[in-house]
Amino acid sequence: MTDLVDRAVGGDPRAVARLVSLVENGSPDLREITARLVAHAGSAAVVGITGSPGVGKSTVTSALVGAYRAQGRKVGVLAVDPSSPFTGGALLGDRVRMQDHATDRGVFIRSMATRGHLGGLAWATPQAVRVLDAAGCDVVLVETVGVGQSEVDVAALADTTLVLLAPGMGDGVQAAKAGILEVGDVFVVNKADRDGADQVVRDLRSTVRLAERAPGDWRQPILSTVAARGEGIDEVVEAIAAHMAWADESGEAQRRRVRRARDEIEAIAVTDLRRRFAALHGDERLDDLARGVLAGELDPYAAAEKIVAAVS
Amino acid sequence: MTDLVDRAVGGDPRAVARLVSLVENGSPDLREITARLVAHAGSAAVVGITGSPGVGKSTVTSALVGAYRAQGRKVGVLAVDPSSPFTGGALLGDRVRMQDHATDRGVFIRSMATRGHLGGLAWATPQAVRVLDAAGCDVVLVETVGVGQSEVDVAALADTTLVLLAPGMGDGVQAAKAGILEVGDVFVVNKADRDGADQVVRDLRSTVRLAERAPGDWRQPILSTVAARGEGIDEVVEAIAAHMAWADESGEAQRRRVRRARDEIEAIAVTDLRRRFAALHGDERLDDLARGVLAGELDPYAAAEKIVAAVS
Repeated sequence: MTDLVDRAVGGDPRAVARLVSLVENGSPDLREITARLVAHAGSAAVVGITGSPGVGKSTVTSALVGAYRAQGRKVGVLAVDPSSPFTGGALLGDRVRMQDHATDRGVFIRSMATRGHLGGLAWATPQAVRVLDAAGCDVVLVETVGVGQSEVDVAALADTTLVLLAPGMGDGVQAAKAGILEVGDVFVVNKADRDGADQVVRDLRSTVRLAERAPGDWRQPILSTVAARGEGIDEVVEAIAAHMAWADESGEAQRRRVRRARDEIEAIAVTDLRRRFAALHGDERLDDLARGVLAGELDPYAAAEKIVAAVS
Repeated sequence: MTDLVDRAVGGDPRAVARLVSLVENGSPDLREITARLVAHAGSAAVVGITGSPGVGKSTVTSALVGAYRAQGRKVGVLAVDPSSPFTGGALLGDRVRMQDHATDRGVFIRSMATRGHLGGLAWATPQAVRVLDAAGCDVVLVETVGVGQSEVDVAALADTTLVLLAPGMGDGVQAAKAGILEVGDVFVVNKADRDGADQVVRDLRSTVRLAERAPGDWRQPILSTVAARGEGIDEVVEAIAAHMAWADESGEAQRRRVRRARDEIEAIAVTDLRRRFAALHGDERLDDLARGVLAGELDPYAAAEKIVAAVS
């Protein structure tokens, strides 16, 4: 294990891949791995990239990788598929676009499916980010589909979150409904050469304008890209840098990092609690309690107390 | 509190509304409320309705309410907005469509924003469903936006989950990527009068055909609707009934209900753990641990152990 971590810290792509797999599979060695990685991590800029299916997340991510590589920065990409807990298999059809960078030693690309549903993304993603961070990535791009919880989870773990939109994916009211204003630091309207792109930009602009802000708060820029042709990507890179500079200055960066560490600690504590309970009573005991609740024999609070009491 | 529960069980809409608000706000009275509700709940059929923004979830939900009312069944609607944890405010712009049913005493409509991000939906939604169930609803429709975690959470709590799609929201590969096959029991292609609807149906059909199944497994039907005109809704109601009959027969219904109860118990245990820790050490202590992890002074597992040890 020590050897594996040393090799990953040294930048060996196979060691990095292996560590991300161990994270994904919830390996019992994670504890030791994490303890060793912590000292080497903490310097990467983490960028979350999210949006509905079809907006072109992979294309934008791939273009950003190219732009950061042109700056000589080492880049990690983590493609998180939060919606396949039942098979545990990621369906990442358009991951092929990333093959432009497949032979570049300065780029690590890993995809990951998050298992289970209570805090799946919250639990595994920060650990995988830490692996890429410790392996010397200057920038880690975390791409995930979604407008719901997964988006919120990505925003929670990123230093800067990009929300991607595209024309024809639902109008501005829908965008507002999905709560993206509260999640995104930078908005990118991709496929900007298509009909309706101007309207998406206008709707976003009026929504951003209406949002309440204190003096000194960040005002989300709205950028347009045609990522498939590389158009507008440099401006996105600049906007990310501007947001990170603002976040450092204002203390927001530190606040987010503390929150991220808290979330990770809590997620680990929960898993630990569950494991202790299963070790003491067998996994079947929780099912028995669940059946008792279903039968109306006890309430879920009483059942939860039994669990907490059992491990205390 | 006893009085409030009694009135809700008796079908008083104001008492129901008040209880859902108490759930939403994480009231300290929840424990007592839940203990009283459990004996009255357990008979409602819970239908999850999910899909990307713009597919017409509210229109389909409203049409389903009408269909169930025509059968003389009492209906509860819970519109869950999982993506506004930062403001805590639900942006339910198209909730207006529900106003068709606003004066019908046989329909309870509540919207709810889920707070915080670790297990937000998993925590509050089953409790709100229990309120509507205990208030005598035969059917509870839980509507939520999203293709990520929120969708998975809805699938976990529903007896039957409808996944809605519409033309122009991304192609079939994207649908597969979003993992909807693993979440949906019934697929509904809404806005079926629009260009591209046939293609969405074809893509879905070939994806469903390719999915691995054991003999006796449920084969997801793919239905087309124009919900704004009520077209295809009766077929959706029939498909839901067919799925529920299959689930009862096969034992899947009971498995889902046990899993749901387990999830709820665990979510309560986690919250309890967090509360105990904060009571013992103050909320600031967790921040201190988080800062220690950020500084590389301790690893998150060691921090989590301190939390669990502190409440043991």
